[in-house]
Amino acid sequence: MSGSIRIIGTGPGNLSWCAPGAISALEKSTVIVGYQTYLDQIAELCPQTPRYGNGMRREVERAKKAIAFAREGHQVAVVSGGDAGIYGMAGLVLELLCLDDTAIEVEVLPGITALTAAAALLGAPLMSDFAAISLSDYLVPSETIFRRLRAAALADFAICLYNPTSARRRGIFETACSILIETLGEARPVGLVRAAFRPAQSVQIGLLSELSRMELGMDSIVIVGNSATKIARGRMISSRGYRLTENSANF
Amino acid sequence: MSGSIRIIGTGPGNLSWCAPGAISALEKSTVIVGYQTYLDQIAELCPQTPRYGNGMRREVERAKKAIAFAREGHQVAVVSGGDAGIYGMAGLVLELLCLDDTAIEVEVLPGITALTAAAALLGAPLMSDFAAISLSDYLVPSETIFRRLRAAALADFAICLYNPTSARRRGIFETACSILIETLGEARPVGLVRAAFRPAQSVQIGLLSELSRMELGMDSIVIVGNSATKIARGRMISSRGYRLTENSANF
Repeated sequence: MSGSIRIIGTGPGNLSWCAPGAISALEKSTVIVGYQTYLDQIAELCPQTPRYGNGMRREVERAKKAIAFAREGHQVAVVSGGDAGIYGMAGLVLELLCLDDTAIEVEVLPGITALTAAAALLGAPLMSDFAAISLSDYLVPSETIFRRLRAAALADFAICLYNPTSARRRGIFETACSILIETLGEARPVGLVRAAFRPAQSVQIGLLSELSRMELGMDSIVIVGNSATKIARGRMISSRGYRLTENSANF
Repeated sequence: MSGSIRIIGTGPGNLSWCAPGAISALEKSTVIVGYQTYLDQIAELCPQTPRYGNGMRREVERAKKAIAFAREGHQVAVVSGGDAGIYGMAGLVLELLCLDDTAIEVEVLPGITALTAAAALLGAPLMSDFAAISLSDYLVPSETIFRRLRAAALADFAICLYNPTSARRRGIFETACSILIETLGEARPVGLVRAAFRPAQSVQIGLLSELSRMELGMDSIVIVGNSATKIARGRMISSRGYRLTENSANF
């Protein structure tokens, strides 16, 4: 039997939010490859299936290992937290397969990505157009990050910040906060979600002026509202512009 | 028992991609409210639970009905296809609740949104920063849409177009194609997915020069690649910039 790779998004890290299609793909696999933290989140699924896990920044090694397993005839599941296609493993595995002449069947399966999980906990901050920007400068120059941030803010997108900070690069987050305040003002609503739908979950809603003092880490997502976002009843709500108080053309 | 509203994203419209948490929230409800097409997609779930469905552009009526049911003491499920927080029902229900003084408990639950479902079928077009833009001018002036499109293209975001066209407003899509070609050139990879993970699914990959001739409808999502997106092995792949052929700092 020839090998295959399924690249699977497991959602926020709580099996209630991992789709049945993802679970059934895991059940079909003969080996599961992933970042160790994500393997731990699905520990109770398919406990008999061998796993290959490793640590942060070893994603190229992980992807190569997945391809090596498939070449041996394995049905490989590569897991990413959230959705594998958003800052996840999908691109890397597909890129490496393009350098490879083996016929390995590959499929990408969607998951609930961090921005939708965070948005749900904050209220409804993404009802209009939005942009997703990673603040990690591991593979992207910080000038590119700041240019995109400024462009998104000036065009009135709501903005989701992935990887807002790590111990190593707090400076990028601080510059990002300054750029956002400079373009949007201090009073723009902002939300911060840590560990969405996991035991350590925390949700904070405040103003842009407070963002640089909020406590955040690798498991955090920041959502900056657009010009139509307000804070009401403890939630961030971006109005899409319905007329709600009249019997108008909306009916 | 006092009433509550759970706003639930049911994913792409195939129950394999609807999270267990969403299904369990539906099972707790005493009435389900939604756009009729989405109610049809979950017809086999909780068949005994009463439903209130209506048609397109009647979302304000739907949201008001949900609140009315909750005021009567119902545990109301409001369903949106995809994720309820992305161009879905979450914002409208929360906005209306803010005009209301009744204490109704409300919760937003995430789903797999159209952009991740489409991206998975196309390959990995969203590995870097991206923007989501709706081409519907129902509530947003077309000038705002075009301004955001141009800003996103110039800042090298991959771009997901929601609601790319309808019979009524083909012109906006054509102008959008012209703006994209003008800023990105004709050779930029683009993907079009219709009815992702549903029986009528279709996936097309091509170049921006071909986009205006692709067949698309209300159930379509368009993803325009960024400068690092190529077409290989029949898929759109956006490189995140890993060095793959050397034993480099990636290991």
